Amino acid sequence: MTRTDHPVRLTAVAAPDQPAVSPDLDRLYRGFERELLVPLWTEIGDLMPAHPRSGATPHRWEWDHLVRLAAQAGELVPVGRGGERRAIALANPGLGGRPFATPTLWAAIQYLMPGEDAPEHRHTQHAFRFVVEGSGVWTVVGGDAVPMNRGDFLPQAGWNWHAHHNATDRPMAWIDGLDIPFQYATEAQFFEFGRDEIGDAERITPERSRSERLWGHPGLRPVGVGELTPGSPLLAYKWEHTDRALADQLAVEREGFGGTVEPGHAAVRYTDPATGRDVLPTIRAEMHRVARGAETAPVRETGSSVYQVFDGSGTVTVGDHTWSVSRGDLFVVPSWLPFSARSEAGTTDSDSGSLDLFRFSDAPVFEALQLDRTRKDAR
Amino acid sequence: MTRTDHPVRLTAVAAPDQPAVSPDLDRLYRGFERELLVPLWTEIGDLMPAHPRSGATPHRWEWDHLVRLAAQAGELVPVGRGGERRAIALANPGLGGRPFATPTLWAAIQYLMPGEDAPEHRHTQHAFRFVVEGSGVWTVVGGDAVPMNRGDFLPQAGWNWHAHHNATDRPMAWIDGLDIPFQYATEAQFFEFGRDEIGDAERITPERSRSERLWGHPGLRPVGVGELTPGSPLLAYKWEHTDRALADQLAVEREGFGGTVEPGHAAVRYTDPATGRDVLPTIRAEMHRVARGAETAPVRETGSSVYQVFDGSGTVTVGDHTWSVSRGDLFVVPSWLPFSARSEAGTTDSDSGSLDLFRFSDAPVFEALQLDRTRKDAR
Amino acid sequence: MTRTDHPVRLTAVAAPDQPAVSPDLDRLYRGFERELLVPLWTEIGDLMPAHPRSGATPHRWEWDHLVRLAAQAGELVPVGRGGERRAIALANPGLGGRPFATPTLWAAIQYLMPGEDAPEHRHTQHAFRFVVEGSGVWTVVGGDAVPMNRGDFLPQAGWNWHAHHNATDRPMAWIDGLDIPFQYATEAQFFEFGRDEIGDAERITPERSRSERLWGHPGLRPVGVGELTPGSPLLAYKWEHTDRALADQLAVEREGFGGTVEPGHAAVRYTDPATGRDVLPTIRAEMHRVARGAETAPVRETGSSVYQVFDGSGTVTVGDHTWSVSRGDLFVVPSWLPFSARSEAGTTDSDSGSLDLFRFSDAPVFEALQLDRTRKDAR
Amino acid sequence: MTRTDHPVRLTAVAAPDQPAVSPDLDRLYRGFERELLVPLWTEIGDLMPAHPRSGATPHRWEWDHLVRLAAQAGELVPVGRGGERRAIALANPGLGGRPFATPTLWAAIQYLMPGEDAPEHRHTQHAFRFVVEGSGVWTVVGGDAVPMNRGDFLPQAGWNWHAHHNATDRPMAWIDGLDIPFQYATEAQFFEFGRDEIGDAERITPERSRSERLWGHPGLRPVGVGELTPGSPLLAYKWEHTDRALADQLAVEREGFGGTVEPGHAAVRYTDPATGRDVLPTIRAEMHRVARGAETAPVRETGSSVYQVFDGSGTVTVGDHTWSVSRGDLFVVPSWLPFSARSEAGTTDSDSGSLDLFRFSDAPVFEALQLDRTRKDAR
Repeated sequence: MTRTDHPVRLTAVAAPDQPAVSPDLDRLYRGFERELLVPLWTEIGDLMPAHPRSGATPHRWEWDHLVRLAAQAGELVPVGRGGERRAIALANPGLGGRPFATPTLWAAIQYLMPGEDAPEHRHTQHAFRFVVEGSGVWTVVGGDAVPMNRGDFLPQAGWNWHAHHNATDRPMAWIDGLDIPFQYATEAQFFEFGRDEIGDAERITPERSRSERLWGHPGLRPVGVGELTPGSPLLAYKWEHTDRALADQLAVEREGFGGTVEPGHAAVRYTDPATGRDVLPTIRAEMHRVARGAETAPVRETGSSVYQVFDGSGTVTVGDHTWSVSRGDLFVVPSWLPFSARSEAGTTDSDSGSLDLFRFSDAPVFEALQLDRTRKDAR
Repeated sequence: MTRTDHPVRLTAVAAPDQPAVSPDLDRLYRGFERELLVPLWTEIGDLMPAHPRSGATPHRWEWDHLVRLAAQAGELVPVGRGGERRAIALANPGLGGRPFATPTLWAAIQYLMPGEDAPEHRHTQHAFRFVVEGSGVWTVVGGDAVPMNRGDFLPQAGWNWHAHHNATDRPMAWIDGLDIPFQYATEAQFFEFGRDEIGDAERITPERSRSERLWGHPGLRPVGVGELTPGSPLLAYKWEHTDRALADQLAVEREGFGGTVEPGHAAVRYTDPATGRDVLPTIRAEMHRVARGAETAPVRETGSSVYQVFDGSGTVTVGDHTWSVSRGDLFVVPSWLPFSARSEAGTTDSDSGSLDLFRFSDAPVFEALQLDRTRKDAR
Repeated sequence: MTRTDHPVRLTAVAAPDQPAVSPDLDRLYRGFERELLVPLWTEIGDLMPAHPRSGATPHRWEWDHLVRLAAQAGELVPVGRGGERRAIALANPGLGGRPFATPTLWAAIQYLMPGEDAPEHRHTQHAFRFVVEGSGVWTVVGGDAVPMNRGDFLPQAGWNWHAHHNATDRPMAWIDGLDIPFQYATEAQFFEFGRDEIGDAERITPERSRSERLWGHPGLRPVGVGELTPGSPLLAYKWEHTDRALADQLAVEREGFGGTVEPGHAAVRYTDPATGRDVLPTIRAEMHRVARGAETAPVRETGSSVYQVFDGSGTVTVGDHTWSVSRGDLFVVPSWLPFSARSEAGTTDSDSGSLDLFRFSDAPVFEALQLDRTRKDAR
Repeated sequence: MTRTDHPVRLTAVAAPDQPAVSPDLDRLYRGFERELLVPLWTEIGDLMPAHPRSGATPHRWEWDHLVRLAAQAGELVPVGRGGERRAIALANPGLGGRPFATPTLWAAIQYLMPGEDAPEHRHTQHAFRFVVEGSGVWTVVGGDAVPMNRGDFLPQAGWNWHAHHNATDRPMAWIDGLDIPFQYATEAQFFEFGRDEIGDAERITPERSRSERLWGHPGLRPVGVGELTPGSPLLAYKWEHTDRALADQLAVEREGFGGTVEPGHAAVRYTDPATGRDVLPTIRAEMHRVARGAETAPVRETGSSVYQVFDGSGTVTVGDHTWSVSRGDLFVVPSWLPFSARSEAGTTDSDSGSLDLFRFSDAPVFEALQLDRTRKDAR
């Protein structure tokens, strides 16, 4: 192996009190290269910073651009075994062109044409769907048909068989969130193909899935259900519940009793009803409502988030970036950059004028390993 | 101290191969008495049986007898500071006349006259209310007014301030369940008096309590609520949710997908939405529905239960006892006695003909200490 | 059933503003009796006190009295199947003559004659042995022979087969601690007879048991050992380790770095090396060393303890009782009574002059159920 | 921004049934680039493989080469603030020249000259030292001086202040293990400088650290120590204990009672004595002993490991690579590649002829997130 194609390439660096790189020092660095070694002292600033300095960049994707491209893909790119899904992922400009919204999170727009199916498979990557507009697609999970409608959140814990089918005569788009980059970085992934065709019995389109009928009643656990696998057994969190919970929270606050995150800022976390913990072992998902005219205090957290505007419009600030956002827009908050949001009563058709933000993050990873930190900055 | 009033009284017992109690042996037993000692070998059969043999007796209390006496007490016995509650407890006939339904559980009928208040207090004993009939009373927990209506389950975790007030012109009865005997046996109890009068602001009678508005949405946790004390933050589990969950479970079973405890037997457990665990640290509470004509398999469990018939009528068997039961009747299942229930379509006004059984037990104590065992007997 | 032999017997009590018991009120109480009911208002003071008021009484048992009676029992009472053990239990004078040291704990002196065996059995009650003097007996647990010597603590988690044999020509005494009263109160007990004879292969007398060789190395877990049952897999905590840990703790304190409970008061807790938790699911066990001339601050705790003086002499105070104690003496600390100990340099043969107190308690029950409270009183 | 320097660069790919890339399809891919999007269908094989396919390569580093270069660095490169440590890291040839032994683990040789100090700092990265040869350096953790000798394992949980000083007149080398790559990938890192000089009081060189005196007694927890931070409070696991535990395990196996991982293969895991869990939240550490002539069965695990030969010599196989290894050699086992080891009696000075392998891995990350899988291959 010649030096040029050797995996380790080093530049000798003199210490502060050394006048220059001596021949001996250079020989030492060549020895490091030869033996596949790298010194800490030239790398420590990058590897061990005073606080997280993300490789990811704050960035916003506009929903109508995404939908337009997804619709073109609907015309040009078939869905089938091998490619598996017509999903198009956000590629953070700081992450080298990889389809990674953040170092740990995948976010994609998925698009299904009228009558189309996406074939069954399963994987260890934890996933969810979130529907910002449209309806008519069913996700079939372990044979249970789960309808997808605007505002619904559908977790898809790892290693469950799942497929999609569009039962209508119109295309539908939604977003997928997964921990693909995290499992890619840690090399944890398994994947299996399932049946190529969904059975006729699963092409039914019930209003509520079996999972909702068994697990979707507040505080009530079905006694007869046995041992559970990791992740929520509830496969759909319908918008009517989320919306009501947020409205209730703001109402309790108006009556003087708190309950919100901060004044004018309601939020609910999607949780596993069997444990009360995060809905997926590696992904946290929440819906935030910033009331008309309210503003959230800047917060830094270890780990990264992806947001999608569900309704309303407003202004969001991530580190040094500030954007006006409206329905469907997506943006990322890299590790330890301060984030805040402000609601603006605008052209939205929401009569309340609030800004509803769907958020997902890698917080459960940090909490499970006791690496989580949070800091509220002064405004 | 003379022998007669000495706390330890023993009878010397000869070993199998000893012809009789010798004077030496008798002297030994007198020595034991004097030194406050008791030998294992005379006690082991009682203390360490092959399996639990409960001191409690299977017993049934008829609801209309309880209500009649409670109504008389309503006329004759005032409610106020000191006595605290007009509650009349089930006294298991095997437990020496103490107000203990089982060795660990307290069950009482509580009765409040029109316009009456029960004063505020708090205690470490965990409690709940369950409403088999009537409405109009509010339980005020930490200043949050929680309405009580037929079918509602209201947990009351230890050390929360609470009071009751009857806002109507009719008396109301319900049952209280607590772990009083368990905390009495382990000597864990603390108690404090609160305000003598409920504030006017708490005499409001909202349809939903604040706790329900914050915590009563399936799988959704309020992000802004901070650290929680033991026991559920959700203060009411309304009948409409319980009823729908049971109906859904039976429907899923009918479609061929299980989800019930056994054929025709649906059940939900009241759980703490913040943890998915039992609603109270020492008390499990469940609602069971035995469909018309169905019968449950006999099951033995360590620990004891109290049941109340919520609706329908049927036959229940506890060990060697079998009773016909109908709305409001209460009965106890002592440790390790087999229990089964059969639904009978009868004179009930329930159009479904199912037998709905509310149950509470001490199972969380056994599970926390890894002492739980269950055995299904052959029918 | 006539009234006299009826399990419930009540005395009607007039309310404060009632001049006397009316005939109606008396009839109400007779109705309660007939229906097996007891009102709360006459019982609340006993059942729901402001703080725990134990039925148990502080009491001390002198070791030489116990040993003398145990030795007599050794002569007069055989050990064998049925009686199972020559164990003589402390009967707290407040607990009605039952062999209960406290409402939850059993403490007994066990005595085995030269060459004698105690037959194999197992039970759900958690147990331990603690050796205040002597040696020569082996406890055989699941076929693993565990030697017993002065200062050794031997946990015996529930449902493990165990037997004892005395391999010497001298009798030996030690104390047994169990949760018999707790499991009796909650009715959780199972019991099975094992082999009548210990196998010859188990009559070996190794210096260290297999359990110690696998689990007795600090912070090191055997990788190849599979799933474990509740309670510590380490079957002996040898005195040399306990003694050294206490001496080290006091030395670190003398160097100015804390580590003790309070000045002059070192203590170690016996823990399950697989979990770091209490050595038994229902029993906490600790060794305390009060240095010469030191005194511990009075502490109240929910739940009860039994102490045995392992070495030294001193004065202990439990509520209003104060005793001088020396090697082998046992005493109980009922729930919520303040306890403190003072070391006295005396006639002890311990050159250090410290007071070593072995303690066991029901604290894990309280902690598992979040019922634990502690209060340090001003001295 | 021109296309060439745009972060996303895509090549349009025709679907199987498309004859070629159409102009429309190419326009679609250019649109993806412009909007910072990447389709799943071209990436799925890399991102979602059937099982983990590690970017890391099996590789071995020979100890004498490492020591020689480290000694040269000792002459040429000073230790001081900024560079912090004279540590030289293994750079896996598959990981692009970064100082990452595996995608999640850092392994380095650290070298300290006679009388030298390494300055105090702290970081969220979890760390440990393992000493394959030499002695004389103390690691000062929170003011507690911990000696380092051959065979000792010293965990260094995140966010504790620590420094090193060499109290002898000879240089010393050891290995450092950290989760730097994992925290780099997830962007969790914090770092702070501490004092530039260790205090004189910390230049003491006691045989046992305070942490060992408080926490180093098997199964015994100091009662007076309050709340603990994540990671083991025991700062040194001395070789004498590890060695004895391995010897005991093999002896128990020889007596016919199991206890080993498999025949001839003993192993202990370094655990946190306060919890029984892994010694560090993100790093598992173990010592394995393969008896003379024994061979371990090939095992695949998700996640990666680094091994160092502590003693003896033998042959190790990782995937398709097989090496002869002896004292000090390091090698990596990437995710899901089968690993096995065989002991060879050779020129070692170990009279037992066993092969002792120190191992550390990222297993706690996988287990905390329920992503762990293990498979034993047929030999």
